[in-house]
Amino acid sequence: MPNPTAAMIVIGDEILSGRTRDTNTQYLAIQLTEIGIDLREVRVVADNPDHIIAAVNALRAQYTYVFTSGGIGPTHDDITSDCIAKAFNVPITVREDARKILAANYQNPETDLNEARLRMARIPQGATLIDNPISKAPGYRIGNVHVMAGVPYIFEAMLAGVIPTLTGGKPLLSTSIRLDRREGDIAERLGQIAEDHPNVTIGSYPFVRDGAFGTNIVIRSQDKDAMQDAAMDVLDMIAPIH
Amino acid sequence: MPNPTAAMIVIGDEILSGRTRDTNTQYLAIQLTEIGIDLREVRVVADNPDHIIAAVNALRAQYTYVFTSGGIGPTHDDITSDCIAKAFNVPITVREDARKILAANYQNPETDLNEARLRMARIPQGATLIDNPISKAPGYRIGNVHVMAGVPYIFEAMLAGVIPTLTGGKPLLSTSIRLDRREGDIAERLGQIAEDHPNVTIGSYPFVRDGAFGTNIVIRSQDKDAMQDAAMDVLDMIAPIH
Repeated sequence: MPNPTAAMIVIGDEILSGRTRDTNTQYLAIQLTEIGIDLREVRVVADNPDHIIAAVNALRAQYTYVFTSGGIGPTHDDITSDCIAKAFNVPITVREDARKILAANYQNPETDLNEARLRMARIPQGATLIDNPISKAPGYRIGNVHVMAGVPYIFEAMLAGVIPTLTGGKPLLSTSIRLDRREGDIAERLGQIAEDHPNVTIGSYPFVRDGAFGTNIVIRSQDKDAMQDAAMDVLDMIAPIH
Repeated sequence: MPNPTAAMIVIGDEILSGRTRDTNTQYLAIQLTEIGIDLREVRVVADNPDHIIAAVNALRAQYTYVFTSGGIGPTHDDITSDCIAKAFNVPITVREDARKILAANYQNPETDLNEARLRMARIPQGATLIDNPISKAPGYRIGNVHVMAGVPYIFEAMLAGVIPTLTGGKPLLSTSIRLDRREGDIAERLGQIAEDHPNVTIGSYPFVRDGAFGTNIVIRSQDKDAMQDAAMDVLDMIAPIH
């Protein structure tokens, strides 16, 4: 049976302007890879309702799980939840359980839980809350879409609660071999090795370090023996045993 | 006149597995922002022909410029150029000018410019080469799509040659104000300021540092005066002048 699949939607003008580097994608990718869920696509979209809605609807139809990060705070530019509600065509209102979670976080809920903060208790109908142990304002899951915070520290804490709720697959194992040789010198033999081992994926990643070229060969498989067999062939290619 | 727009396609399983963090997107984003081109969308797709072709065709129809990174090397997993040719429905063959560039890079072109390396001289019909001052194998532009290397050092060098060929717009200016206050405490007033200044975009980015919450307010505009007026209102919000 093939592994479950996933897509990530990063919402935010600040990523697209280059001001902020997205780190949530890599964090998610590593966690999903560990439990056998294949992250297949990532989209970074602007704070624009049409773009957010289109991405959510395209990806939730295509992949087992979708994750979003960003745009669920209290300010005017936090439009993710309204877009999610529109994408699912459901109403969005302040929900009592979410409001209580927020209220419990303030010493003076009457004044501190102001109208802006109440926006964070607006949850699309039919969603299940995702715990936020850091700043309390919850994320939520609706259908196969997990709506989470953009701040990395909070995204990561929310994900820790989400991971056990996902159905994983067979983890993809990988091993990496670093060569001080250029890709072009090993490409033909490597292509042959890739053909000889249909149950593994062999990736070749060139790098430049201190002006010298090298190549990382990454061998991935769900089957440990198949991975090791291919790795042996790669090692033999570098230092042939006669 | 609105600014030209752009999209980025990052091609590579190694990003989606979390093994490698993509840095080309942020580098591109900063460069485009400086010359008034709005990066509107980024997609990270797997080494899968259907996904690559679909992303190229969706984005080249929607945005002024498209940039791709990754998958143009000599190994079996470098499938970008074949996908680009299919997306544009044009043939792809070894091109003499590209072959010469590669040959000039080797002391013994007859042996070193092997079949695998010759793959890097395969260029979709109708493309214009993009110079690669680092490892020589060229990128290319076809239609509005710029096909570039994945290795950051090479991507950046190629981009340096591409930037002067692009038609920019009015650069987006920005100023950032850092507050030691939580978003929820300033959200209502900030929303009002955003409404009062329709020619600026005001972004609010919460952060957590050493356990303390804070907010970065970023004010963006093509109009310097409008940006400064809005910034004054934000500063006045923090420390009202009576």
